[in-house]
Amino acid sequence: MPLNLPRTIEFVEGRVKLVNQLKLPHALEFIETSDWRRVAESIRKMEIRGAPAIGVAAAFALALAAYHTRANTVEEALRELELCADELRRTRPTAVNLFWAITRIMERAKGAGSMEELRNKVVEAALELQRIDEEANRKIGEYGESLIDDGDTVMTICNAGSLATSYYGTATAPLYAAFERGKRFKVIALETRPYLQGARLTAWELHQAGIPVKIITDNAIGVVMQKERVDLVITGADRITRKGYVANKVGTYPLALMAKEHGVPFYVAAPTSTFDLTIESGEEIPIEVRPGSEVTKIYGVRIAPEGVDALYYAFDVTPPKLVNGIITEKGIVYPPYEKSISKLFAIQQ
Amino acid sequence: MPLNLPRTIEFVEGRVKLVNQLKLPHALEFIETSDWRRVAESIRKMEIRGAPAIGVAAAFALALAAYHTRANTVEEALRELELCADELRRTRPTAVNLFWAITRIMERAKGAGSMEELRNKVVEAALELQRIDEEANRKIGEYGESLIDDGDTVMTICNAGSLATSYYGTATAPLYAAFERGKRFKVIALETRPYLQGARLTAWELHQAGIPVKIITDNAIGVVMQKERVDLVITGADRITRKGYVANKVGTYPLALMAKEHGVPFYVAAPTSTFDLTIESGEEIPIEVRPGSEVTKIYGVRIAPEGVDALYYAFDVTPPKLVNGIITEKGIVYPPYEKSISKLFAIQQ
Repeated sequence: MPLNLPRTIEFVEGRVKLVNQLKLPHALEFIETSDWRRVAESIRKMEIRGAPAIGVAAAFALALAAYHTRANTVEEALRELELCADELRRTRPTAVNLFWAITRIMERAKGAGSMEELRNKVVEAALELQRIDEEANRKIGEYGESLIDDGDTVMTICNAGSLATSYYGTATAPLYAAFERGKRFKVIALETRPYLQGARLTAWELHQAGIPVKIITDNAIGVVMQKERVDLVITGADRITRKGYVANKVGTYPLALMAKEHGVPFYVAAPTSTFDLTIESGEEIPIEVRPGSEVTKIYGVRIAPEGVDALYYAFDVTPPKLVNGIITEKGIVYPPYEKSISKLFAIQQ
Repeated sequence: MPLNLPRTIEFVEGRVKLVNQLKLPHALEFIETSDWRRVAESIRKMEIRGAPAIGVAAAFALALAAYHTRANTVEEALRELELCADELRRTRPTAVNLFWAITRIMERAKGAGSMEELRNKVVEAALELQRIDEEANRKIGEYGESLIDDGDTVMTICNAGSLATSYYGTATAPLYAAFERGKRFKVIALETRPYLQGARLTAWELHQAGIPVKIITDNAIGVVMQKERVDLVITGADRITRKGYVANKVGTYPLALMAKEHGVPFYVAAPTSTFDLTIESGEEIPIEVRPGSEVTKIYGVRIAPEGVDALYYAFDVTPPKLVNGIITEKGIVYPPYEKSISKLFAIQQ
């Protein structure tokens, strides 16, 4: 059964079409453009978000620039692309995938001997990047779907979904794969304050795909595990250390702790590019502290008294002892993570 | 140092004055009336909320009715009061304190031999009810303040504050008592979705009283205990069983579990009237399931896609193994609770 799910972003014959995520969950609207600046604007305005999706969007912006350039020489075109890359790097300065994607595309462009070759190389490199992202997610889905049985209830947080990637998602990949294989199950999505990505995006895409989903407030993890049967928790990850510490959206750690308390298996789904083998412990992962105003206002309405600020850490770190397994495109790794993660990367090389 | 904190509700010379909590945290506005129907309306519209505060409000509504009655005979006045009591019972049908307060006042009224005696008895009974509530909270404060040291950071959830009682609160009582004794410390208030009582009410009253407070999203309990020093957690309770299971606002259980994981003492503050000795276990406590729409809309804006509902349990149950102590007006009880709680009530009788 195919998924009724739009592609987050596409490049077709010199045009980019992307889901305007700011309009979700109220309406499914697309932005279509042949102008790379409009794509940069979409990244900046968060019409597209999610690290893998942003990387692909930046690549497609460069592809548009190369496709439509009026430059006569490769040198001139490369100068244009460099300016375009500079502007793209400024859109979301902390997004690692974005920098990585831009570097990758620019390297390919530099090897071109003619204008035609430059155009082809850039467009192909961008499409390849999208393909690699989707393939990794499909693989995560294949490995992870075995964890889901008919009649299960699966819990997830934030949006590590199709909308955060070019397609299929990371944490959602096992769900979509199980659903495509005909399994029937329910999902409980944590709303994920302050930005409510769980309620707005994850619930939207699962509902769109035909998977039954309910949302809960983030503080309901305890009572829901007390009152309902929960069979599995799957979340995404922003960074995973050599020892298996998982940095992810704030709220992941309490969810993992509660899952452990109730004997519910807790899995992380993430491509191998999420692993940072240069660090060991959770304390080494820098945790982004964002303005308190992002918590104290909801849709422009102030929820806290004047003079009272909020403390807003955007991520937390889940220790490996709470993680039953990490689903990657190369297979699922299990504790002890130091061993299984190093093995995963040894095989790769 | 006296607290810069308004009384939640007062009865002075035939008039009731109460804080309009719907205006918080944006403005401190009072409702003043000599009409008992206006007080009933305040309970119904949730201009006043919190079980103890509602009980006192109902008592004051009856006091207004008795004070201003034009009845010529005690029988006639009692008939009026019964009608008034009926209307009050319909305001918040699940609020136990409200029924208890009404019964108590009506019993006193029935013993009156003259109109003057009836007026005096009803007004005095209502004022006494307020005094008992405040005295219990002051005692909780005296017993609990020893848990707080200079420089501490204390975490709390929802509003078991002065605004939920006639004055001083339950979970907040140790904070106010410590503050009045000159101790200086910080509070972190969980915002408490879906109604945000922590952000709107607890943060407001602590800030008003001069106690430094910051709010966090409910899902930040883990990262805040990872990144900041937290010395103590104090919450209120809606019902406590004979074995020490604590039903309280949804989110209390994850908070207690996280506190245990980080070695942070977790205390519950509640008057002895909160104990339900007829039940033992947590599963015996009925947990109110409320409409999902209370989660899927924030200030009228829908946060979930059309067709997706939320699961909303309003309370959760914290098991006794996570509770370091329960602060009551008769002293602090410690595990094993079955023993200490039965002892607490044995002494009373």
